[in-house]
Amino acid sequence: MERGLPKAYEEIARAHARPERVYVTRPAMPSLESFQAHVAGIWERRWLTNAGRLHGELEGRLAEYLGAPHLSLFCNGTIALLAALRLLKIEGGEVVTTPFTFPATAHALTWMGLRPVFCDIDPVTLNLDPGRIEAAITPETRAILPVHVYGIPCDVDAIQGIADRRGIRVLYDAAHTFGARFRGRALAAYGDAAMLSFHATKLFSTIEGGALVVPDAARKREVDLLKNFGIVDAETVAVPGINGKMNEFQAAFGLLHLEQVDREIAARRAIAQVYRDGLGEVPGITLPSEPADLEQNYAYFPIFVDPAAFGMSRDDLHRCMLWANIEPRKYFHPLCSRYPCYRELPSARPELLPVAERAAERVLCLPVYSELPLDAVRDVCALTRELQEAAGAG
Amino acid sequence: MERGLPKAYEEIARAHARPERVYVTRPAMPSLESFQAHVAGIWERRWLTNAGRLHGELEGRLAEYLGAPHLSLFCNGTIALLAALRLLKIEGGEVVTTPFTFPATAHALTWMGLRPVFCDIDPVTLNLDPGRIEAAITPETRAILPVHVYGIPCDVDAIQGIADRRGIRVLYDAAHTFGARFRGRALAAYGDAAMLSFHATKLFSTIEGGALVVPDAARKREVDLLKNFGIVDAETVAVPGINGKMNEFQAAFGLLHLEQVDREIAARRAIAQVYRDGLGEVPGITLPSEPADLEQNYAYFPIFVDPAAFGMSRDDLHRCMLWANIEPRKYFHPLCSRYPCYRELPSARPELLPVAERAAERVLCLPVYSELPLDAVRDVCALTRELQEAAGAG
Repeated sequence: MERGLPKAYEEIARAHARPERVYVTRPAMPSLESFQAHVAGIWERRWLTNAGRLHGELEGRLAEYLGAPHLSLFCNGTIALLAALRLLKIEGGEVVTTPFTFPATAHALTWMGLRPVFCDIDPVTLNLDPGRIEAAITPETRAILPVHVYGIPCDVDAIQGIADRRGIRVLYDAAHTFGARFRGRALAAYGDAAMLSFHATKLFSTIEGGALVVPDAARKREVDLLKNFGIVDAETVAVPGINGKMNEFQAAFGLLHLEQVDREIAARRAIAQVYRDGLGEVPGITLPSEPADLEQNYAYFPIFVDPAAFGMSRDDLHRCMLWANIEPRKYFHPLCSRYPCYRELPSARPELLPVAERAAERVLCLPVYSELPLDAVRDVCALTRELQEAAGAG
Repeated sequence: MERGLPKAYEEIARAHARPERVYVTRPAMPSLESFQAHVAGIWERRWLTNAGRLHGELEGRLAEYLGAPHLSLFCNGTIALLAALRLLKIEGGEVVTTPFTFPATAHALTWMGLRPVFCDIDPVTLNLDPGRIEAAITPETRAILPVHVYGIPCDVDAIQGIADRRGIRVLYDAAHTFGARFRGRALAAYGDAAMLSFHATKLFSTIEGGALVVPDAARKREVDLLKNFGIVDAETVAVPGINGKMNEFQAAFGLLHLEQVDREIAARRAIAQVYRDGLGEVPGITLPSEPADLEQNYAYFPIFVDPAAFGMSRDDLHRCMLWANIEPRKYFHPLCSRYPCYRELPSARPELLPVAERAAERVLCLPVYSELPLDAVRDVCALTRELQEAAGAG
């Protein structure tokens, strides 16, 4: 990493330098006035949290927008994931999951006293490889926790088949899936439960926030108890719940964000198309997959750099982009299985996870958000092409 | 409960009926304009969460205000409590705690795979009775989780002595203690760690929110990791953390609330004095204790109803107050040890917890918040006195 790159690369990068830093994403802000109008309403009602009016409104609108009638809002997606593990009584054993994800996935398991068992991913979807899940299951396995990485669907049928045969649960980390529809249905509606994240960096946001999607009203009632201390009424506490409540300010932000999310998706679709046009023919660059039956949400635009064919490693390309004032991110590098807290696990051995290891070494998520100027996108493409040409010739 | 009360009681109550519902508390709202100014700043910076500017400012100001230099903000107090258990490596065993508390105390233990062991309380402080803690400790005991109920200090010396002798941890649920100073030091600064709650219903609030107070900078760094997925930097994840982050809107609310908290405490002190003057001589009513060396925060005003001496049960007094449009709350009834999820525990048997059982049967927290008109406080007192006179004569 620290060896010098040819001066020529830096010159190419600086020639494309953006006047302002281009981040991998920026939160799309509703109008200040519209948010302040909600704030004034909150001030009038003096109801700040605990299932307030905006919270109820947002749950209703999201259920409708997603076509997932039974969902419950949370203060953040990770707490929703903890609650889902409790809801599904996934406890005291192992859970098969992917190492190619944000830390929350594995950490939620560890936090709840479960052992993550890492399993390799499919080279096309970058999600858990069903062919390998089966081999990872032991009598200790309580569940499968797959991630729909970048909003790309897991092989939901194969995974459900394995779970059914083994009598275990499927809990999806659907953090990236907002608005993605698979076979005409919300991708977040598959499995025994699925977690959505509404963090500020997400396509749809409630500042911090998240939700749990469950299959029926009875489960939603259970989730609602789990996120509010198990309190039924002033005299009755039914179950050991915690505090996972979303407050009214988060809900207000979400209501406004929801109004603009279709525009956000459309803008990102246009950006993705520029990337595809500009990078599709570059040797050594693989573009994200485009599965059949998927209405994408364009939340991320990951490319994969083959150092031999491209002439430069992902890390070097990343470094060049920083020179150009462009900041893509290596989502997800390092793999969870490389963290100090997991690397001693038998399932964490790099030789057992070759596809995930390669994806983590090659991936670069390019900037994508509605306000990103298309000429910045073209700069990223031109820079990448020129670097490849220089590196290929070098 | 459902038997009829004498018509005369209802007539007394209705004669004192308040024109507007008087709740046990109401959130003190900063000025709408001051909050909108912070919102505008957040819009300008477009930094919504993840250790933003207001978050940093609030941590600094709170550390100064409380005289507790090492504290870390959380999305809510319960998540702070979970993180504290992880921080102190309290795991896989029993924790001695009080049943006379909000559900979060016991639930945090259960959620983290620990078994609560309920221990009776002291009749004066209503906090864990040190004389009984010792007997509750077994080789399985990992820690003591006492609560400073109503901001009244536990016997911190005796508890620390037991913990030192047994080599176990003391984690305080200091949810009620904001601003309370004991022996010239923040009550929240005692123990190996202490949790503060900043929920909307609290004296000091960040909408939802909380904090963990720890003894040194190294521990604060650990807590900061635990609340942000263990992320050190883009390439390093050190420990299995979760998401406990407070966002910028919560921090903004807190910054403004902090400016007015001394006024809030002063107003509550005045209300407490009216209650003391009005209820001090009523037969069968015990007022909250006033420990030496304590600068109180007046967060709660609990009274205790002796049905024989008062002539009426706490529940009947509660019912009469509702007729008067006054809504006190039975904090903390029922005891945690009575919840379905805990009542089968050996330590939950009512005969082992006589002091706590009696407190839960007798307590009534009277309305107290800065905007409560003093004539409403006088109505509560007059109503209580007149009911006692009628019931004593009846």
